[in-house]
Amino acid sequence: MSEEQQAQPQPAPGKKKKKVKVRRPKAEAPRGFRDSFAAEVLARREMLGKITEVYHRYGFDPLETSAIEYVESLGKFLPDVDRPMGGIFGWQDDDEQWVALRYDLTAPLARVAAQYRNDLPNPYRRYAVGPVWRNEKPGPGRFREFYQCDADTVGSPSVAADAEICAMLSDALEAAGVARGDYLVRVNNRKVLNGVLERIKLLDPADPEGDAVQLETRMTVLRAIDKLDKFGTEGVRLLLGAGRKDESGDFTKGAGLSDEQIAIVIGFMEAERAGAAATCAELKGLTQGSMVGAEGVAELEQIGEMLEAQGYGADRIKIDPSVVRGLGYYTGPVYEAELTFEILDEKGRPRQFGSVSGGGRYDDLVKRFTGQAVPATGASIGVDRLLAALKMRGQIREDAAQGPVVILALDREQMPRYQRYCAELRNAGIRAEVYLGGAGNMAKQVKYADKRQSPIAVIEGELEREQGIVQLKDLILGAKLAQEIESNEEWKAQPAQISVKAEDLVAETRKMLARHGLQG
Amino acid sequence: MSEEQQAQPQPAPGKKKKKVKVRRPKAEAPRGFRDSFAAEVLARREMLGKITEVYHRYGFDPLETSAIEYVESLGKFLPDVDRPMGGIFGWQDDDEQWVALRYDLTAPLARVAAQYRNDLPNPYRRYAVGPVWRNEKPGPGRFREFYQCDADTVGSPSVAADAEICAMLSDALEAAGVARGDYLVRVNNRKVLNGVLERIKLLDPADPEGDAVQLETRMTVLRAIDKLDKFGTEGVRLLLGAGRKDESGDFTKGAGLSDEQIAIVIGFMEAERAGAAATCAELKGLTQGSMVGAEGVAELEQIGEMLEAQGYGADRIKIDPSVVRGLGYYTGPVYEAELTFEILDEKGRPRQFGSVSGGGRYDDLVKRFTGQAVPATGASIGVDRLLAALKMRGQIREDAAQGPVVILALDREQMPRYQRYCAELRNAGIRAEVYLGGAGNMAKQVKYADKRQSPIAVIEGELEREQGIVQLKDLILGAKLAQEIESNEEWKAQPAQISVKAEDLVAETRKMLARHGLQG
Repeated sequence: MSEEQQAQPQPAPGKKKKKVKVRRPKAEAPRGFRDSFAAEVLARREMLGKITEVYHRYGFDPLETSAIEYVESLGKFLPDVDRPMGGIFGWQDDDEQWVALRYDLTAPLARVAAQYRNDLPNPYRRYAVGPVWRNEKPGPGRFREFYQCDADTVGSPSVAADAEICAMLSDALEAAGVARGDYLVRVNNRKVLNGVLERIKLLDPADPEGDAVQLETRMTVLRAIDKLDKFGTEGVRLLLGAGRKDESGDFTKGAGLSDEQIAIVIGFMEAERAGAAATCAELKGLTQGSMVGAEGVAELEQIGEMLEAQGYGADRIKIDPSVVRGLGYYTGPVYEAELTFEILDEKGRPRQFGSVSGGGRYDDLVKRFTGQAVPATGASIGVDRLLAALKMRGQIREDAAQGPVVILALDREQMPRYQRYCAELRNAGIRAEVYLGGAGNMAKQVKYADKRQSPIAVIEGELEREQGIVQLKDLILGAKLAQEIESNEEWKAQPAQISVKAEDLVAETRKMLARHGLQG
Repeated sequence: MSEEQQAQPQPAPGKKKKKVKVRRPKAEAPRGFRDSFAAEVLARREMLGKITEVYHRYGFDPLETSAIEYVESLGKFLPDVDRPMGGIFGWQDDDEQWVALRYDLTAPLARVAAQYRNDLPNPYRRYAVGPVWRNEKPGPGRFREFYQCDADTVGSPSVAADAEICAMLSDALEAAGVARGDYLVRVNNRKVLNGVLERIKLLDPADPEGDAVQLETRMTVLRAIDKLDKFGTEGVRLLLGAGRKDESGDFTKGAGLSDEQIAIVIGFMEAERAGAAATCAELKGLTQGSMVGAEGVAELEQIGEMLEAQGYGADRIKIDPSVVRGLGYYTGPVYEAELTFEILDEKGRPRQFGSVSGGGRYDDLVKRFTGQAVPATGASIGVDRLLAALKMRGQIREDAAQGPVVILALDREQMPRYQRYCAELRNAGIRAEVYLGGAGNMAKQVKYADKRQSPIAVIEGELEREQGIVQLKDLILGAKLAQEIESNEEWKAQPAQISVKAEDLVAETRKMLARHGLQG
């Protein structure tokens, strides 16, 4: 179809259509979306391969669900609810049902666990990798599509399943290339939080939901605790009390707690002591009198013991009462993995890189579908954030995408000959291609090869063909020499180029690649 | 959040909310979408790995674009235009712009090639893998989300780029596991088709678009030729002429050509001869007098020569004038890879499996954005169809997803101990997990291990613990024995179980795995 036909309505048959000026579409991805080129795709693929290898070794099976779910299946668990469709991309299908793109990999898992509950092993242990979509306001570094890499155990009430996720997060981060000491998995328990809320009279165990005011206040308290990293203890204190004014003068309303209530919450947030046992002892005091609080502390104690028995010390995993996790659906242990090294923020100030993974126990998600509580726990690694972190640490090689050997096409008539050389190289497992651009002299073709990060250009002009030879131009060595040699004359001597017999093309190419530690 | 809060609007603060009965969401994927479990995910991943390895070796770099594009970027190239939004899933973003899920991987490539044209190597050679979405009527075996795996060269006017795609399709199919002789890559050229249309006066080279009637008739002719596989020569003859009534009595209006016109089109469709050269000679006669037709034949001749020089014979790639390809945007050579082996259709009748890949040259797609023609060519492999084909041929092992070694949790108090065993196995690279289900006796736990396709269950009860041993239960051997042995008594003797020292767990597990040819 020509573009005119696309740009205007079809004329009635028989009528001669009018030609109108075509408005060209702008070539850009929608706001908040981006493109990944070779180096990034390969780095992400390698990282996902290493993480999922750990998940696999831990006994989790892969699951792939569709990008689209019924809106009612997804639930409303996103914190950012003042946006259209509650932060999701949704539309009405032509059978009138509302569907949407998944915003995480947990909601589809809950749907699958409910749908196939009679056929799946119990517990059902799955991992999943893929993009998720959030209808959020895009900004610098904030995208509306990003990768997650999750592992969850559905059907296990045991805290052993929670401890396992923490250990696995630690192993997965190290497999992905994060050095021990550069990350920390922090564990807390929503039940302990509830115990504290009970002690300050914001939660009545006889009526755990309470009235709307209590609910609202509880959410404000949780959000305040979650801001510890950002605003420090004094900032949280303001948010728990009358409210906090930020640098720009904007005022955030506080939870309105009394000084006594605030002291208890702050005491809880700062209850971390050296070692899991000491921290749990401190927490016991803070949740005294609360059944659910005691239960939560006991669970944390067990998790601490299990991890200790497996050798995961406080340098990798620790109990940290200040962990909240945003999503509303957690019901027990919650985890967060953060990178502890410093980076410079947009204003050049050093700050910790922060969270790259989180998760927890969510015993009610499957119940939404079936009415029966199904205990479940798991975590999600934010792959793109992790990738960005490793890039900042210089651990992602930008030149990982080694280009192909490029056979120059200097004589169009000889294309079948160049292609035969190329096939020889490819059949020997060497990445190769013939230059396929429009008419271009040698300089232009070598420039293309350089842009492709090609290690070698293969050159056969008329002269070489008559002599039965080809030239191998070592582009890696050439680039090095070009940096070292000042004089353009010297460079023109092309010391990085050798003549080889045409029948030795594969063997000589291999030798030249091997000189740079490349396979072929 | 509890489910009541999700199911009803928030009450005004201070008011006590009413409890209403919750309507549970149905646990199912939306119509036309599906879930892939371990065996399928692993098989697809393996296949994609093999295909992209070929693409990579041919010099194509990976590219990942977002799932969402501006609707105007996507264009309107889908054939099935009587559906809402022209066969795509789209919605209005909150800045009023219309966006949609990509329906193929070519439209996003055209957008990328236009957007980054000053930075990308020229030619730009990329491959892409991922799901695409079509808003079509779902049906048995017809899904609205499926995988594609594409490779394209953007910026090359040379038919060498087209020949390369054909060779690569052949290599990729063989790498994916399709035996030589079970597939065929068929090549044609839209220009030759246009030459035939010119000869029958449906196309005027001075006004290639022509009036609406001509356009409509041309499309009807192309659609008719495309139906050769389905309806045979006589069916196509009807569709070219007055029209065709199908078995159910439905009537499809024909192109209304004269007998003379029809004879020329049918002659073209059946112009295939033994070998590319002979076929091209035949086509020369059929397009006589048409410039564009002669150009098309010359291109096919060159493609034939190049492929022959590389050793791709008619058992792998051949020129076949009946290939049309549905999408409107092709401007030159078109390719289609089909699987030639027979399968049984839903009515038990044998039929060829058919097309698993297609592509062609589309020189106008990038021009939509930039106004400048950019020659491009490429192909797409329908991964899910290919996977289904290999499954039918028994080439996908359903048990490829070997389960983990399962350490039974017979004594809850000993969980840290079981986890330590598990960590030992995992650290040795052996896939393993502790049974994490709720209270369950040994039979239930072994049943779980069987369901997971676990090779080995590790058993340590009180007795074993006192003796410093563990039992290794060989579940693969056990399953074999269970099939062979009639008597339940004999089975109970558990010949597939051995006692080993607890400290030899890793070494003995490895030995037992090796006995079944499994790694550990």
